[in-house]
Amino acid sequence: MKSEFELIQYIKSKSLALSCQPSAVRIGIGDDCAVIPKNERTDLVITTDLLIEDVDFRADWTTPEFLGHKALAVSLSDVAAMGAKPVWALVSIGIPEKAWKTDFVERFYDGWFDLAKKYNVELIGGDVSRTTDKIVVDSIVAGEVKKGKAILRSGAQPDDLIYVTGELGGAACGLKLLESGERFEKTEHKNLLLRQLQPNPQTKIGQVLGVKNLATAMIDLSDGLSSDLAHLCQASKVGAKIFAGKIPFHKNLISLSKSEKEKFSHAFDGGEDFELLFTANPENNFYLEKELKNHSFTLIGEVTTNVETVELVSGNESTILQPKGFRHF
Amino acid sequence: MKSEFELIQYIKSKSLALSCQPSAVRIGIGDDCAVIPKNERTDLVITTDLLIEDVDFRADWTTPEFLGHKALAVSLSDVAAMGAKPVWALVSIGIPEKAWKTDFVERFYDGWFDLAKKYNVELIGGDVSRTTDKIVVDSIVAGEVKKGKAILRSGAQPDDLIYVTGELGGAACGLKLLESGERFEKTEHKNLLLRQLQPNPQTKIGQVLGVKNLATAMIDLSDGLSSDLAHLCQASKVGAKIFAGKIPFHKNLISLSKSEKEKFSHAFDGGEDFELLFTANPENNFYLEKELKNHSFTLIGEVTTNVETVELVSGNESTILQPKGFRHF
Repeated sequence: MKSEFELIQYIKSKSLALSCQPSAVRIGIGDDCAVIPKNERTDLVITTDLLIEDVDFRADWTTPEFLGHKALAVSLSDVAAMGAKPVWALVSIGIPEKAWKTDFVERFYDGWFDLAKKYNVELIGGDVSRTTDKIVVDSIVAGEVKKGKAILRSGAQPDDLIYVTGELGGAACGLKLLESGERFEKTEHKNLLLRQLQPNPQTKIGQVLGVKNLATAMIDLSDGLSSDLAHLCQASKVGAKIFAGKIPFHKNLISLSKSEKEKFSHAFDGGEDFELLFTANPENNFYLEKELKNHSFTLIGEVTTNVETVELVSGNESTILQPKGFRHF
Repeated sequence: MKSEFELIQYIKSKSLALSCQPSAVRIGIGDDCAVIPKNERTDLVITTDLLIEDVDFRADWTTPEFLGHKALAVSLSDVAAMGAKPVWALVSIGIPEKAWKTDFVERFYDGWFDLAKKYNVELIGGDVSRTTDKIVVDSIVAGEVKKGKAILRSGAQPDDLIYVTGELGGAACGLKLLESGERFEKTEHKNLLLRQLQPNPQTKIGQVLGVKNLATAMIDLSDGLSSDLAHLCQASKVGAKIFAGKIPFHKNLISLSKSEKEKFSHAFDGGEDFELLFTANPENNFYLEKELKNHSFTLIGEVTTNVETVELVSGNESTILQPKGFRHF
């Protein structure tokens, strides 16, 4: 059985084989965004993300406004992961007739525009289609970054330090609460449900790291730390060592997790936290502290030469962290 | 009940109201593509198109290769309608597990790449997602055009001549044959079914019109001549007069239509021919003949001052042509 990563490799090799002219792109398939030269000073980064009803969201768990917000947020997170500033976007939405007859689409766009306004993202196009029964959204966002300065997954060097923004595991814990029947209107855990339903992209931090040239590699935490760190290590041809005691668990995770194992599982494999995972040269630690003094970020580990192996160090013990984050197939 | 055009107006007005900085775009929502400044010489055009199973296609009527071709073709057609040269593309695809277990995605990309190769379009990214039961595709294509020279829907002037490329009604007739049970493997009417299943974007003609600056306005025929000409007239604040005797009906349409009315309905309201409809200054007729001498195109009418009214002239009779092309809602 093929995995989605094997499919991506198939497409990538086909794409390269057919290329019969100098490529128009700097970075194609396989990073958070593609990178395309714009002009002499600037590169364009672009990403697209599908959200499918009953796979990526449940209509009765969310609101149209949250969904509009999340559709934009997931793509903004990819743009942030390149160190780029978001600029414009397109949205394609497919909805069944019964939803069309409600105020669903207007409320969806209200949520979308509320977030777009925060980061000055301009909606320039899209498509509207009917579906037979499920809602589907495809979100496309482009950003700009100084020429050659997009932060790729592939730039991590041995001995670089590994950082993560914000707190981890909140989105997975929020999902578990939703699955167990809690709903946003009634729950005591609104902050956890919001981590799942209305995630905040780390747009500002992404831009600081891009403009100040402070990160050697970066990826956003969409699938989960264990998988996304594995992607980064694979792209950079390095390994990683993570210190269990340094993981910034979401503050409510401790009281809401049944066990240490569940707490780690939410933070490592849960996905959808949409925080940024990045590596930096140790010499830049001082500048990171300075430039990101108003933002939450944590040093959680270091890059090793143990290619594609992620070790989790807890006291004197070290275990291999398997990538168990979200996969569609 | 709102229409999709009313929704587009809602989104457009929201977008304009929230714009709190100089716009990054030249042309936003409402044309075949958005137009964004790229550098001092070039503008970027970009479009996105959703294809939804059992709304836009039926899995048992088509093949994965045809679907991959069509997903790219519909967006290439939008890029052609701006007079632009396609450059790069992204594809998001959502498929159910049962299709994932077959060779569907590989064959889909085979069809996509076969067409991409013809026009040197580079695949730079995309997304793959699971769905619960239906296939969905979102196709994103960007093109380049000389700065300020994108051909908009809004440039038609009274007394301009109206042209259409190729032949009309074939795709609608092909759809009717599919609906009546004909299948590609067995039909005698392969050419008509191909018009529906594997449409040809008019990429070369679009580029000639763009580079030679020969058209005042252009739109691609996706919804149907009656609707698409109405869109062009609305955007240009003009009317149009079409000569029934000049319509280039698909060559098989006459024998396969039950009546004159059905023949006209296929050609005017059927949609999905993905030909180009454009207007040009009468003085350019000579240059059009010269520059497009190796391509099929037909003069079918003229632009009038009778704002947003499309007349169909047949002999001495004139009737008002109502927009009856495809609408999702």
